[in-house]
Amino acid sequence: MRFNRSNTISKSAIIGENVQIGRNTIIHDNVVIRHNSIIGDNCIIGEPNAQSYKDDGYKNARTEIGSNSLIRSGSIIYSGSLFGDYFITGNMVSIREKSVFGKNCSVGTFSDIQGEVEFGDYCRLNSHVQIASKCMFGSFVFIYPMVVFTNDPLPPSDNLIGSTVDNFSQIAAGSIILPGLTIGKHCLIGAKSLINKNVPDFEFHAGNPAVRIGKVNHLWSKEDKRPHYPWPYNFEKNLPWSGIGFDEWTKTEEGRIYAL
Amino acid sequence: MRFNRSNTISKSAIIGENVQIGRNTIIHDNVVIRHNSIIGDNCIIGEPNAQSYKDDGYKNARTEIGSNSLIRSGSIIYSGSLFGDYFITGNMVSIREKSVFGKNCSVGTFSDIQGEVEFGDYCRLNSHVQIASKCMFGSFVFIYPMVVFTNDPLPPSDNLIGSTVDNFSQIAAGSIILPGLTIGKHCLIGAKSLINKNVPDFEFHAGNPAVRIGKVNHLWSKEDKRPHYPWPYNFEKNLPWSGIGFDEWTKTEEGRIYAL
Amino acid sequence: MRFNRSNTISKSAIIGENVQIGRNTIIHDNVVIRHNSIIGDNCIIGEPNAQSYKDDGYKNARTEIGSNSLIRSGSIIYSGSLFGDYFITGNMVSIREKSVFGKNCSVGTFSDIQGEVEFGDYCRLNSHVQIASKCMFGSFVFIYPMVVFTNDPLPPSDNLIGSTVDNFSQIAAGSIILPGLTIGKHCLIGAKSLINKNVPDFEFHAGNPAVRIGKVNHLWSKEDKRPHYPWPYNFEKNLPWSGIGFDEWTKTEEGRIYAL
Repeated sequence: MRFNRSNTISKSAIIGENVQIGRNTIIHDNVVIRHNSIIGDNCIIGEPNAQSYKDDGYKNARTEIGSNSLIRSGSIIYSGSLFGDYFITGNMVSIREKSVFGKNCSVGTFSDIQGEVEFGDYCRLNSHVQIASKCMFGSFVFIYPMVVFTNDPLPPSDNLIGSTVDNFSQIAAGSIILPGLTIGKHCLIGAKSLINKNVPDFEFHAGNPAVRIGKVNHLWSKEDKRPHYPWPYNFEKNLPWSGIGFDEWTKTEEGRIYAL
Repeated sequence: MRFNRSNTISKSAIIGENVQIGRNTIIHDNVVIRHNSIIGDNCIIGEPNAQSYKDDGYKNARTEIGSNSLIRSGSIIYSGSLFGDYFITGNMVSIREKSVFGKNCSVGTFSDIQGEVEFGDYCRLNSHVQIASKCMFGSFVFIYPMVVFTNDPLPPSDNLIGSTVDNFSQIAAGSIILPGLTIGKHCLIGAKSLINKNVPDFEFHAGNPAVRIGKVNHLWSKEDKRPHYPWPYNFEKNLPWSGIGFDEWTKTEEGRIYAL
Repeated sequence: MRFNRSNTISKSAIIGENVQIGRNTIIHDNVVIRHNSIIGDNCIIGEPNAQSYKDDGYKNARTEIGSNSLIRSGSIIYSGSLFGDYFITGNMVSIREKSVFGKNCSVGTFSDIQGEVEFGDYCRLNSHVQIASKCMFGSFVFIYPMVVFTNDPLPPSDNLIGSTVDNFSQIAAGSIILPGLTIGKHCLIGAKSLINKNVPDFEFHAGNPAVRIGKVNHLWSKEDKRPHYPWPYNFEKNLPWSGIGFDEWTKTEEGRIYAL
C-alpha cells in the first residue's frame, strides 16, 4: 500500500472501501469515490468552477468516480462529472465540468476534455487528445494521439455544435474533426485527416481534407487472416468478448445492446 | 472563500487586496499579484530561470499579474513576464520568461508559451497551443487548439525569427505557422493549415500548404444574416463592443485605437 | 540555493552530492540521482507502475538520472528508466517505464514518452512531442513540437512496431510518423508531414502524405554560405563540435563513433 495520506479531503466527500489517495491530492466537496479506486499524487478531484471564488453560497456539483478506477498523478477533474467503474487516466489529464463517461473508459496523458461531453462504455482516448464541449460518443470508440474534436463552425461564434461518433469507430492520430458532423459505427479515420463531412457506417476516410477511401474491410494486416476491420474480430485485449469472440459476444445480453 | 493557505509566498512578493492563493502554490521573489486575482492550487508563479540554481547572487526578474486574473491550478509562470488585468489561464499552462500579455487575455490548458512573445489585448488561446519565442500578436487574435507558431526556418539554426499577427485574426485548430511570416488583420486561417507565406488583411487561407481561398467576407453561417467575417459584427461575448455593436465601438476612443 | 526541502524522499533512493530537490517532490524507492542534478517542484521521480497499488511485495525497478541533469517542475518520470548525464526536461513532462536516454538529451514541456523507447546522445525533443513505445533513435536527432511517433499499423491491434531514426535527422513540427518505418541519417522531415514510407539517408521528405522532395543539401538559408544541411556544418550550440567544426570533430575518437 503506497500512500501516506498528507492530502486534503472534504468532509462531504464519500470515499469507498479500500480507496487509496496520494500525497498533496485535494478531494473537494460532494465527491464520491467508489471502492477499490486509486487517486494518485497531486490530483484535484471535484475542482469547483470559477463561480466558487466569488460566491460564498456556492454549492459544488456532485462528482462520481466509479469503483476500481485509477486516476494517475497530476490529474484535475472538475465537479459535476460522472465516471463509470474501471475509469483510468494517464498523468496530468484535465476534465472540465458535466462530462459523462461510461464504464471501462480511459483518457490519456495531457488530454483535455472540455466539459459537457458524453462517452459510452469502453472508450479509449490516447494522449494529447482534445474534445470540445457538446461532443457525443458511443461505446468502444478509440481516439489516438493529438486528435481534436472542434465545436465552432465559424470561429468565434455562439453557435457551438459538437460532433457525434457511433460505436466501434477508430480515429487515428493527428486528425481534426470539424463541428457538427456524424461519424457512423465501425468507421476508420486515417491519421492526420481533416474530417469535414459525415462518415457513413463501416467506411474508411482519410486525407486533408478527407475523402472516402472505401469500406473498412478492404484493410488487411500481415498478421490477420482476414480483413482487420471490423476490428473486434481481431482485437480483444481487456474487452468483453475476450475469450469468446466478437460474434458469440454479440449474441449475449450485453453484446446485443452495443452491436445493434 | 476557498483556500486555506498552506502555500509558500516569498517575502518580496507583493500581493494585492482580496487575492486568493491555492494550496501548495509557490510565489517566488519579486512577483506582483494585483487585487482580486485568484491563483489556483499547485501553481508556481515567478519561477526563476535555471541560472538561479547555480548563482547565489541571482535576482529574480519582476513578474506582474494584473487585477481580477484567474490562474488555474497546476500552471507554471516564469519570472520576467507581465500580464494585464483580467488574465485567465486554463489548468497546467506553461509560460516562459519575458512574455508580455495585454489586458483580458486568456491561455488554454496545456498551452506552452516559450517566452519573449508579445500579445496585445483580448487575445484568446485555446488548449494545446504552442507559441515559439519572438512571435508578436496584435489584439483580439484568437488561436484555436493544437496551433503551433514556429521560429526556426531551417532547424536547427541560430537565426530564430518569429511571425506577427495583426488585430482580429483567427487561427483555426491544428494549423502550423512557419517562421518569419506576417498575417494581416481580420484574417482567417483554416483548420489544419500549413502557412508558408504571408497572409494579407481580410483574407482566408487554408490547406497544407495553405493557399488563398478568398476574402473572409465570402463565408456565411446559417445563423448570421450577413457574412460571418469580419467576425466582430457577429460575436461580442465578453468583448468591449458588447451591447453597442462593433461599428459604434470603433467610433469610441478605445475602439479607434484597435480598429485602425 | 533555492529549495527548502519539504519533499518526500525514499530511504532507498541514492542522492548524489550537491543535488537540489524542490518542494512537494516525491522520490520513490530505488531511484539514483547523480551529483549536481536539480529536480524541480512538484515532480515525481521513479513513479511505480500500477502493479504497486495491488501488490504488497512490489519492488520498484531502478531509475537512474545522470549527473548535472535538470528535471523541471511538475515532471513525472516512471521507474525503470535510465537517463545519461546532462539530461534536461521542460515543465510537466511524462516519461513512462523502461525508457533509455543517452547523455545530453532534452525533452520539452508537455511531451509524453510512452515507455520502452531508446534515444542515443544529444537528442532534443521540443514541446508536445509524443513517442509511442518501441521506437528507437540514434544520436543528435532533434524533434520539433507536436510530432507523433505511432506504433500500431492498424489500430487497435497487438502488433505494435516502433519506427527507427538514425543519427542527425531532424523531424519538423506537427509531423506524424506511421509505425514500423526507418528514417535514415541526416534526413529532414518537413513540417506537418505524414510519413508513410522509409526515408533514405540525406533525403528531405515533406507533405501529407509525404513525398521525396530531394537531397537535403538543396536547402540553403540566407545566412549560411553553403547548404544548411547536413546541419552540423552550420549549427554547433552546446554540441561537441562547438569551436572545432564538424569535420574536425568527426576525426576525433568521439566523433568517429557517431559520424560513421
